[in-house]
Amino acid sequence: MIRVAVAGASGYTGFELLRILCAHPSVTVSTITSRQQKGVRLDDFYPAFKHHYDLVFEDTDPDRLAASAELVFTAMPHQASMEIIPALLGRGVKVVDLSADYRLRDAEVYREWYTAHKTPELLGEAVYGLPELYREHIRAARLVANPGCYPTSVILALAPLLSRGLIDPTSIIADSKSGASGAGRGLAQGLLYCEVNDGFKAYKVGEHRHTPEIEQELSVLAKASVTISFTPHLVPMTRGILSTVYSNLKPGTTRADIDEAFRVFYRDEHFVRLGGDSLPVTLQVRGSNFCDLGWKVDGRTGRCIVISAIDNLTRGASGQAVCNMNIMSGLPEDTGLKEAPWQP
Amino acid sequence: MIRVAVAGASGYTGFELLRILCAHPSVTVSTITSRQQKGVRLDDFYPAFKHHYDLVFEDTDPDRLAASAELVFTAMPHQASMEIIPALLGRGVKVVDLSADYRLRDAEVYREWYTAHKTPELLGEAVYGLPELYREHIRAARLVANPGCYPTSVILALAPLLSRGLIDPTSIIADSKSGASGAGRGLAQGLLYCEVNDGFKAYKVGEHRHTPEIEQELSVLAKASVTISFTPHLVPMTRGILSTVYSNLKPGTTRADIDEAFRVFYRDEHFVRLGGDSLPVTLQVRGSNFCDLGWKVDGRTGRCIVISAIDNLTRGASGQAVCNMNIMSGLPEDTGLKEAPWQP
Amino acid sequence: MIRVAVAGASGYTGFELLRILCAHPSVTVSTITSRQQKGVRLDDFYPAFKHHYDLVFEDTDPDRLAASAELVFTAMPHQASMEIIPALLGRGVKVVDLSADYRLRDAEVYREWYTAHKTPELLGEAVYGLPELYREHIRAARLVANPGCYPTSVILALAPLLSRGLIDPTSIIADSKSGASGAGRGLAQGLLYCEVNDGFKAYKVGEHRHTPEIEQELSVLAKASVTISFTPHLVPMTRGILSTVYSNLKPGTTRADIDEAFRVFYRDEHFVRLGGDSLPVTLQVRGSNFCDLGWKVDGRTGRCIVISAIDNLTRGASGQAVCNMNIMSGLPEDTGLKEAPWQP
Amino acid sequence: MIRVAVAGASGYTGFELLRILCAHPSVTVSTITSRQQKGVRLDDFYPAFKHHYDLVFEDTDPDRLAASAELVFTAMPHQASMEIIPALLGRGVKVVDLSADYRLRDAEVYREWYTAHKTPELLGEAVYGLPELYREHIRAARLVANPGCYPTSVILALAPLLSRGLIDPTSIIADSKSGASGAGRGLAQGLLYCEVNDGFKAYKVGEHRHTPEIEQELSVLAKASVTISFTPHLVPMTRGILSTVYSNLKPGTTRADIDEAFRVFYRDEHFVRLGGDSLPVTLQVRGSNFCDLGWKVDGRTGRCIVISAIDNLTRGASGQAVCNMNIMSGLPEDTGLKEAPWQP
Repeated sequence: MIRVAVAGASGYTGFELLRILCAHPSVTVSTITSRQQKGVRLDDFYPAFKHHYDLVFEDTDPDRLAASAELVFTAMPHQASMEIIPALLGRGVKVVDLSADYRLRDAEVYREWYTAHKTPELLGEAVYGLPELYREHIRAARLVANPGCYPTSVILALAPLLSRGLIDPTSIIADSKSGASGAGRGLAQGLLYCEVNDGFKAYKVGEHRHTPEIEQELSVLAKASVTISFTPHLVPMTRGILSTVYSNLKPGTTRADIDEAFRVFYRDEHFVRLGGDSLPVTLQVRGSNFCDLGWKVDGRTGRCIVISAIDNLTRGASGQAVCNMNIMSGLPEDTGLKEAPWQP
Repeated sequence: MIRVAVAGASGYTGFELLRILCAHPSVTVSTITSRQQKGVRLDDFYPAFKHHYDLVFEDTDPDRLAASAELVFTAMPHQASMEIIPALLGRGVKVVDLSADYRLRDAEVYREWYTAHKTPELLGEAVYGLPELYREHIRAARLVANPGCYPTSVILALAPLLSRGLIDPTSIIADSKSGASGAGRGLAQGLLYCEVNDGFKAYKVGEHRHTPEIEQELSVLAKASVTISFTPHLVPMTRGILSTVYSNLKPGTTRADIDEAFRVFYRDEHFVRLGGDSLPVTLQVRGSNFCDLGWKVDGRTGRCIVISAIDNLTRGASGQAVCNMNIMSGLPEDTGLKEAPWQP
Repeated sequence: MIRVAVAGASGYTGFELLRILCAHPSVTVSTITSRQQKGVRLDDFYPAFKHHYDLVFEDTDPDRLAASAELVFTAMPHQASMEIIPALLGRGVKVVDLSADYRLRDAEVYREWYTAHKTPELLGEAVYGLPELYREHIRAARLVANPGCYPTSVILALAPLLSRGLIDPTSIIADSKSGASGAGRGLAQGLLYCEVNDGFKAYKVGEHRHTPEIEQELSVLAKASVTISFTPHLVPMTRGILSTVYSNLKPGTTRADIDEAFRVFYRDEHFVRLGGDSLPVTLQVRGSNFCDLGWKVDGRTGRCIVISAIDNLTRGASGQAVCNMNIMSGLPEDTGLKEAPWQP
Repeated sequence: MIRVAVAGASGYTGFELLRILCAHPSVTVSTITSRQQKGVRLDDFYPAFKHHYDLVFEDTDPDRLAASAELVFTAMPHQASMEIIPALLGRGVKVVDLSADYRLRDAEVYREWYTAHKTPELLGEAVYGLPELYREHIRAARLVANPGCYPTSVILALAPLLSRGLIDPTSIIADSKSGASGAGRGLAQGLLYCEVNDGFKAYKVGEHRHTPEIEQELSVLAKASVTISFTPHLVPMTRGILSTVYSNLKPGTTRADIDEAFRVFYRDEHFVRLGGDSLPVTLQVRGSNFCDLGWKVDGRTGRCIVISAIDNLTRGASGQAVCNMNIMSGLPEDTGLKEAPWQP
């Protein structure tokens, strides 16, 4: 059994990690930490975990974490992650970081969208944890930067098309919609039930911090610098992201080219399901690590429209983190992730 | 008091008409019709209307309608509308048609997206009932074609920009999201609570029948033939449409130009509210005839993103229909539409 | 035009008052106050009211209120209300108080469930504002204590049966369910969208502060001291209360007696709609001042089950407050309340 | 590996069975049947199961089922179940029946609430599949009648109190609330999203078919004939049942007696979690086989109020069915049911 710890376990991604890990056949959760809930029993704080865990929230201490775990999931806010991760790595612990701290390879870009980086020297080592793109690097990594929820949905939608050069990389527009759990469990008037219910809206248009992360990976795929329009929206539902991604077809690209690109790129991928004309629905991936993809080639406008659906807490955070841990630990990728989506 | 009738009153747009009309100070509803509910009392069929109406659904008979009403709202499916409207006009009755039958000016386009038209000769006379664009024509009209819900949200978002030539008309992408009431009250598995809840999805991508209606009006505004990408989505909520509309700025267009265009175009419009940087939310227009608009100019990509919010049943159907009736009848436009949005 | 003010206008009952009052034909809102939002424009704070009000939140100053209004709605928390109301009355202003401060006639009961009362001498004068029970007293009142949301739903369900002595008053159980807006707009983790959605629960079982208010009025109706079991629940919806009220039939009571009791008691009441076997649904009263009632006589168990549905913000708070204002001002009771429920 | 089949797999309980079984370590699903979907691939009908199952819906043929499975789950409507079960038993196959056909021990009661029974001779053999009450009988059974969702929630709430004689069995009132998935996937106007959303209501008051099932088991526990008031309600959510169960304490019963009764009765039960004062929430059991219980002793009224929460599709149907299969097959009860509830 691999002993793991969850640092920052009192938020929604922490819950989702603990939910997945408690049925994982090769893992034991030894330690959970939370600054605010220190000393509180997990099943008092969150009764859903009663009869599952006998754990108490502890302080986030690197020595304690290193002593009790071979791998630590850091599910803290950005900035807090980079304060503890170097100490963990220094003690020989592997880390899957769910924050944004090690996703951007360029410290200057991080500074521009977040704040000054404290350990820029680690940015080169951290592996971007999207298994479909970086599986081999993840296998060998000490530090995996787990992708953001929106980036996961947008990058998987475009990877086959950009890597084959089928679309114009200057024309990309990603219109994304997320359930409210993506905003976390902090108190904010805009997250009250009566404000979210019936209250569909866009937010941070053109300014969302996931923009540079998406552009970084799309640029790698396109082998050219890519700038996109990215618009996130808040959907009155708890879980799920649906991204509708527009791009102009390059001259000569056919529907068959697009189909072939998706088929080949995701041929052996268990966690990507191709629907083609049959479009994805957030409900059909809920609680699972799947990314469902559908697409349309619109001859009238010369555009390709790709639609991707993921569960923002599972594929968009904790499920992908467990998948990365599996790869880093030499386990089959779907260990502990075999359950079907929750229907209905 | 103006005597009006509602033909096809047993669906959601019919309910919304009756809801608005029952508090309208200058109107009496004399007749309601429904093929399927003939003979049934309105307040048995829909207990919400108890203590409001003493009406029974009748057959849709033009003589009966003409005898009892000066103006008829036809809230029937397309095709059914054009079967009765000529008879109503022939009997001297004014009509506000909530179906798609008289929205397209070109019978050939109607045939392509719907079916063969039965009275193409009326297409030239029918006025497209978007008051901000066609107020004077509506005032004099016998037959007003009430706009579709999605078209209302998209056309109002772009009218100031296209009419001033600030954006590239070949670059328009409208990503629209609608609550489930837009799909009507018919039985379909995809509309069951357990399928819609948590089940955000796109549908009819590149194929929705509102596309030619939007393109027709955008072409008038742009004084050029406009083709767009239009993607509708289903949101787990009852009411509301939010459209996120992308376009490329023409060289030289500034943020100030965009602001000025909106300010001038909608200067005296009561039912359009400009938010600028403050983005609209469907909840804030619920139950009202408002269209709320916000926009961003994204210097990174050279695009303008306009976001519009309406209530699909009110501004997108029955509220706009009552507004058109007011104009046709010489009443102030907001008569019976003075109520504030429902909060929360 | 009657000039009114709303003190404590930044919460949900304040919004609902402003929503109703803005379309009220005989009223002008002259002043709104809020401790926290002082100096903020109403339509900046709540964009839904744009194009409806040109008001700024002010301090809650009795002189200012008395100078600008003939009647003040106090929509503040309990305790805050009784700090300002005596000063308002002393300046000749009428008051409809939406808090709990003047609902209980016995200062000792108030102290037990709330806190020490500051102006017990006014408790005898305040009229409990349930028009169906106290219409004539309301007409003459300076100070009306607007009923709580749960009490309105339970008292109206039982009034006909208790006043006729058809049920055993020691057997009453009220199982009530409310939408989340009943908990107000304050920040609390339990009110976040992701916690309320799919999270049906009971709360404050046997301890809710509305219990003594319900018992006070049921005791008046029964002419005997009544003690009940009252269990409130939180429903994943924004608006609406449904109360399922159980009682044992007194020996000899028949279904016909029950029917007759409801018919006679509510014969001329516009805002109570009797369904009998046809049971009420919260959706069918949403946004309206109606209380819908249905009932079953269960021969197997000798019990009567009455079910009532109201909108907690309208009939359960602000709609009833406006109705009380109408009565106090000599206006028809349904002035400004003529709109039908919101469907769907 | 145990080979199992699901007869009637195209509804929500069928989906839930397949969801649980696909991650069950000791089971293979060999056959699924559906009258209506015969010949359709499971993952075409329900894309959520793509990459999980390679199955096609077949006809419900007992020979085929017996050849391919050692145990069959019958998830068909009542009446349909009893048409096939005798043939399955005759071929040596064990059956867990999710319909109501074998839950009532008295064919006359079945006839009164449902219809005439076709195989009354099997009623004596069938075991009521509530493990906390009938574990040893289930272990030896050929035919297990899986309990109804409401009965599971009510019986578990009362079993400790009735078996110890702490409450008056003539005073029981069960006020139950269920998410919409309990009504199944059939088309009905009342199940449309726009009708359920914001539309909380009671239904079948005093007439619901789960009443005799509840009374049968409560009578066994009380060793006396028990008649109850049972009121089901529809909650705007997908999953979950919360039952609020009222009863009068017998003279002398104390809070400590109640606490002790629950503690002792459920001492070794993994799937019952006791909260005492900490009341259950449907969200905290979602997707799991838990039944969470909380309770209050109300000294003011002499009543005990027990509140139970289950997931209607898991503990109320398919999770409990798998648990029964585990017991019938000699597996640990929680095999395949180890996953924590879905949060949020």
